Parts: sequence; structure tokens; C-alpha cells
Amino acid sequence: MSNKITVQKLAGFRDYFAEDVKIREYVINTFKKVFEKYGYEPLETPALENSNIFVGELGDEAEKLFYRFRDQGGRDIMLKYDVMTSMCRAVAENYNKIIFPYKRYQIQSVWRSEKPQKGRFREFTQCDADTVGSADVACDAEFIQMGIEALSNLGFSNFRANINNRKIMNGIIQYAGAKSSDFVAICISVDKLPKIGKDGVKKELIEKRKISSEVADKILEVFSLTGNTEELLKQFKNKLKNIPVALEGINEMELIFNYFKTVQLDQKYYQFAPFIARGLAYYTGPVWEFEILEGGVGSVAGCGRYDDIIGKFMGTKIPATGGSFGIERLVEVVKSRAMYQAKSNFSQVLVTIFNKELFDESLKIADFLRKNNIKTTLYPVILDKLDKQLKYANKKGIPYVIIIGPEEVEKKIVKLKNMKTGDQKEYEMSYLLKFLISN
Amino acid sequence: MSNKITVQKLAGFRDYFAEDVKIREYVINTFKKVFEKYGYEPLETPALENSNIFVGELGDEAEKLFYRFRDQGGRDIMLKYDVMTSMCRAVAENYNKIIFPYKRYQIQSVWRSEKPQKGRFREFTQCDADTVGSADVACDAEFIQMGIEALSNLGFSNFRANINNRKIMNGIIQYAGAKSSDFVAICISVDKLPKIGKDGVKKELIEKRKISSEVADKILEVFSLTGNTEELLKQFKNKLKNIPVALEGINEMELIFNYFKTVQLDQKYYQFAPFIARGLAYYTGPVWEFEILEGGVGSVAGCGRYDDIIGKFMGTKIPATGGSFGIERLVEVVKSRAMYQAKSNFSQVLVTIFNKELFDESLKIADFLRKNNIKTTLYPVILDKLDKQLKYANKKGIPYVIIIGPEEVEKKIVKLKNMKTGDQKEYEMSYLLKFLISN
Repeated sequence: MSNKITVQKLAGFRDYFAEDVKIREYVINTFKKVFEKYGYEPLETPALENSNIFVGELGDEAEKLFYRFRDQGGRDIMLKYDVMTSMCRAVAENYNKIIFPYKRYQIQSVWRSEKPQKGRFREFTQCDADTVGSADVACDAEFIQMGIEALSNLGFSNFRANINNRKIMNGIIQYAGAKSSDFVAICISVDKLPKIGKDGVKKELIEKRKISSEVADKILEVFSLTGNTEELLKQFKNKLKNIPVALEGINEMELIFNYFKTVQLDQKYYQFAPFIARGLAYYTGPVWEFEILEGGVGSVAGCGRYDDIIGKFMGTKIPATGGSFGIERLVEVVKSRAMYQAKSNFSQVLVTIFNKELFDESLKIADFLRKNNIKTTLYPVILDKLDKQLKYANKKGIPYVIIIGPEEVEKKIVKLKNMKTGDQKEYEMSYLLKFLISN
Repeated sequence: MSNKITVQKLAGFRDYFAEDVKIREYVINTFKKVFEKYGYEPLETPALENSNIFVGELGDEAEKLFYRFRDQGGRDIMLKYDVMTSMCRAVAENYNKIIFPYKRYQIQSVWRSEKPQKGRFREFTQCDADTVGSADVACDAEFIQMGIEALSNLGFSNFRANINNRKIMNGIIQYAGAKSSDFVAICISVDKLPKIGKDGVKKELIEKRKISSEVADKILEVFSLTGNTEELLKQFKNKLKNIPVALEGINEMELIFNYFKTVQLDQKYYQFAPFIARGLAYYTGPVWEFEILEGGVGSVAGCGRYDDIIGKFMGTKIPATGGSFGIERLVEVVKSRAMYQAKSNFSQVLVTIFNKELFDESLKIADFLRKNNIKTTLYPVILDKLDKQLKYANKKGIPYVIIIGPEEVEKKIVKLKNMKTGDQKEYEMSYLLKFLISN
């Protein structure tokens, strides 16, 4: 054909074929089930939003990634950059309709014009849950419990929630005598402690962040404290005993860890991680991430309390907390570690077509099986040779094939071929059904 | 707050809150289950595509509705206008990876810059299933059977598939001596037969379509034939016996109706409807729609065979058939007729917080219930009064509330309040669980 269209998907975007859709569904449904068990309800917001809800809110780096344009009516619109901001808009716009505290989850696509690179895509799924309208850190603790349950249900065992509190960070900066305007810069450097060590961080604080040597030493003095979660909190409490904001943060942490004890959460799943900084732009209290500890996976969720954001949309302060799971990352690991078998979702049996005259016999069997809830493919090309049909089953991984020729019709049976073993057996219809149900 | 952001979703877009999400999920999952039972596998394609796959393919009217813009790299891109075209692109691009015949379903959002009006939205869901790579009309018949099964499973009983074949239409035009270039114009007028009657159609054919009176009469002569599906087909066969393309179309119809007899499909669910035109732009053989017969709902799916489209992307001809269900329309009807109760998906019980000191007792009970898979909301604000917590349960439609005060803690029981009847009963924990599981 001469006018063939040159076809290509856009760079940084993906087509998901059957197996990939099923693995994604498995991961997403695992989260949905857990969220709903904890009383979170679903919300969906549009893909397109007025740009004004995102512009000026997320920082210059984020704005470079916006898919922003004018629609045919000249409106300044853009594809959703994140689900949280879109949720804030929906909450503000539906304030009188929503029953607060509002616990919602939201699993939807967002779009970012990222440089395409391995594992970075321009369309990806965010999986968020949030409680809006409660200042209690019990809601933060509940989220962490939920996250641990969801990751366990997905089949992970070696992972951990790293929990910190922005108020403790603020306290450390006061303790060390640093300027509060250096908060973000200091956090970014301290966040590198596990990677570059104390000396590296000190060097960076002094040379790059222009912090005095004395202040840097006092900061690192706090971060030299060690021990398990309980011991470490005690030491922080002692060291920062004259800094009210730090004590407030430590008290919130104690409430969270007390929650975990009450629900008997295994201690291996969480720790007080004072160097964790996470998305400092808008967090106000507890912050945490979930980290898969094996195989270099790293963080799979960024979360925290953000008591000041929704107010920007509302003109009235509404506390909120929650977080976002990186579905793509988790799907990738679930797939590469074969933690889920998608194959079982596809047809259990292929009914072949012997010839044109016997099509009705094959159709009857396919219909009988479907009416009994067996996932059944009726081979879709009537004149293809049997050999081609068997190859089709094989390539598609369909485990059983039914053959019905003139002999079988006469004997009122079907031939069932096991594609793995090559075994063929003859079955009367009701036995065929019994066999397929139990295999 | 002075710098409150003015928030508004874009006109023609919707937020879906809990109940609406759940009704949509119910409708979508009903289709998914049926498609998978028939051997169709899921596919998902990106929201954004290069504009070249849509431009010039769907007609000027469609192009006016494109969300088309340039990305930061200057690429001419657009939001997916329909899932079928995007599927054709994905099939062409992954030709060597796909096992043909390829049976896929695809349930995703598409975007059209429509004038906002009642029931018309700029972001909506298409629910497609197609068989790619088989010219056999058995695949068309299978789709119709699937559609009937899905609509039945949704709870509809009074609906019908109206089936026609473009080849018969072509044959009628030959029979009447009309120009083949008038095909679309004639179809559009004939499509109005049920609405404006024979005289109305004749007037339109002559005055608007500039068809001669003799040709119009011969066309209407064919459309005057009456009878049930079987009788009507016989009469068409007789009337058009010298027109090979019409006989080919009639033969295809007979194969489809024979398929229905073989699977014992109730005749009330389908009819030969010769005046049906449907999306003439690309259909090549059978065309059909599903019509809900009560309550002025009308057509809820547009479908047909399109043997020439994928070739445009491939440079080689690939036959295909399938169709698209209008999920929004169906959701609207399911909701307005209360055909699905979304409420059962939300929390069964609210655990209240008596006071700060007893928070742990409430948390323990909530945790116990969740660990036994009871959907449980733990009230999220520790200091709210009990009265406010009960109102919360009431507004959210949570059927049971648990109260645990000092007396209950001492007696090792909980108080369970039925929010519908107002009844309160005391339960020991294991009995509480038994009661909630069975209620």
C-alpha cells in the first residue's frame, strides 16, 4: 500500500500488552484492597486541569516538565503533573459535598516531560492515599501500617519504612545555630549521610552550602547519635531538650511508634531515620519512605504530612497526610522477580476448528465451556490448518487444546491435548468440564 | 489566607467520588470478565500519541475535536482521540511480537474537545474489543454474543443488537442504479427511516441528496420489505438476487444468524436491521449496534468489521472486527436505575475514639477487625466528641459503629450500634467478629 502511515509511539511512552497489564492490575488491586480495608475511598480526577493549580506551586524544576498548552478555547491547561495537587483542587471545589475527615485513595496516570532514560517514563501511575482533615499523627501511623501490609501482600519481606519528622530537623538547625533559610540546603546534604559519610557531608556543608565549620560540627554531632529506634529517640530527646519544636517532633514520633506497638507491627519493618529529608517543599511533620532492601531497588514511596497545602486552595487551613507509591517501580520488581504469574489470567483452553463443516461442533463446545465459566478461545480463522492452530496455542501459552473431528463427533467425545506434556485424552463433555475445572 | 488559588476543574471534565468510581468499576469489570472468558486479552496504549496517526484519518469533524499541541521538543502530539486508532498503531509497531489472530480488549480514556452539554464530556472511557487477523464473520458473531452477555450480566433484559452489512447497502445502491459516490449520503438518509418514515426519507433523498425520483423509489422499494430476521433476509435475497455484492453480504448475515442458533441465543436479543448505517467512514462488512429499548437510552455501542484500516499503518492488509461500548452512557443508566449498590464496597464499621487515653483500645479493635478482613474505619480525629463521630458514620452510610469506653474496657466487651435501627448490643470480641462477618 503506497500511503502507509509512519507509526511510532512517542519516546518515553509505553504500550502495555496482556502480561504487563495483568501484573500492573495485580499490584494496583493489592493496594486498592488494603486501602479499602482501612476505610479509604476511591477518587478520580481529570487528566487535564487548568494550569493555575500547578504553576507556582511545585518549583521551577517541576515546571520544566509540564505538558502545558492552550486548548481550542485559548485556555491555559496542562496534563496532571501529580494526583495530590489535583486532589487538593477537587477537595476545595467540592468542600460542601465532602464529609471530613476525608480518607481517599487515587490511582491514576500523571504526565511529565522527562528526558527519556531507563526506568523513567513520561506517563506513569501514581498510587496515593491521604487523610484530609485530621492533625493526629495516628493517621500518619495508619498510613505506614497500610504501606507495610500492602508491600507484604505483594510478596515482599525485606523492606522498611524510614521515618523522620521535619520538626526534629527544624530543631537540629536551631540547636546548631544555623539560619532557618538554610533548612533545605542542610537537609539535602544531610540526606547524603549513608552515601558520603560524615566527612563528606561536613565538606559539602562548609564548601557548597556556606555553613560555618562550628555549625556543621554541631549538626553532625546530633547525627552521630546511634542506637535502635527507641534508644535513638531517647538520645535525641536528651540532646535537643531545650528546643521545643524538636521535642514536639519527638513526641509525634513516640505516638507513631506506640501505635506500631499496639498493633504489634514487626520492628524489622520500621526505623527512626533522622537523616531522611524527602520532598521538603511542602511537608510539615512526619515524613517517611518505604525502602526495598534487596536488589538495589531503594525507595518505592514518598510520604508525609502536609498541613499547609490544601489551605492554599481553600482560604482555610486543613491538615492532611499521606503518600504516593511508585507503581512502575514495584511492577518492575514484581515482574523481574516473578512474584506474580500473569499467565493464569488468560485462556485455559483453545477449541480448534477441524474444518468448515464442523465449525458448529467446535462452537457448541466453546459455548458450553464459556457458559460454565471456563476461559475459552475459539480459534478465530475457520480455514487454518490444525497444525497452525496448535502452534497458536503453544505461542500463546494456552495449556489445553480441544480437537473435534468427524470421529469425535460420531463418538460424542472430544480430544483434549495437554500442550505441556503432549498427552491426548478423550473426554465425554461433562468429564471434560470436571477436568478443566480442577486443572 | 490572602493568596488563595482560584480552583476550578475544566468545563466538560468530571471528578469521580467514591460511589461513582465504584459504579464505573462494576460496569468495566463486567465487560472485562466477559471479554476474558472469550479469550480477549488486555491492551493499554499511551494517552499521548504522535498526531500523524489520527490526522487525515477520521474526517474534518473529528479533527475539530482534537486536543493537539506541540510538546517542549516541538513534536506535533495529541491526546488519544479513540482507542481503536491507537491500537492499530500499537499493532503495526509490534507486528513481530504479536501472535495473530490477535484478540484484545482495551478500556481507556479518550479526549475530545466537544462543546460541553448534558451527557457530553471531554474525557470519557471507551471500552473496545476486537479480533485482528481473521476475515471470518464468526468473529463478528462472537462479538455480538459477548455484548449480549455483558449487557445481560449488567442486569439489562430489554435490549437488542441491530445488525446490518455494508455489502447489502452497497448492493441496494447498485440495484437502484445510484452512484457509488452517493453511498454515504444515501446511508445517512436511510438511517432516518424509523424517525421520519418513507415519505420523509424520499423527500430528503431527492431534495437534499439530489437523487432522482426513480432511484429513490427503487431504494425505498427494498426498504419496504418486512418480516422477522429470517423472512426479511429471504426477501432481500430474492429482491437482490442479481447483485453479487448483496448476496455476499446476505451470506455473511446467514452465517452470523446460524452462529446465534448454534449457541441458542434468544431471538429477542438480535434482528436484521437493514437501515442501520453506523460510522460509514471505515466499515467494510457487518455493522451493528446495541440498543437499550426502555427509557429512551438508545444505542450504547457502535461496532463493525473494518478490513482496510490496519493496512494503512502496515503496508499489508489485515482484516479486523470489533466495537466500542459507551461506558459513560451505561454507567449513567446503571446508576439512575439503581442496578448496582456501590455502598457495600465501603467500610462496614466505624470504630469510635472515646478519649485520648482509650485510643489504644479502639486501635486494637480496629486492627483486630482489619486483620480479619472487615472493612473498618478508625475515626481519624482523636479529640472529636462521640456525637460528631456518630454523625460521621451516619453521613457516610457506615452501617455499624463500635463504642469502647472505660466500662466496656473493664468488662472486656464492645458496644455495637446499628446505625439504621439505633439498636445497641454488647459483644465479646469473637462474637463481634462472627456477627460482622455474617451481616
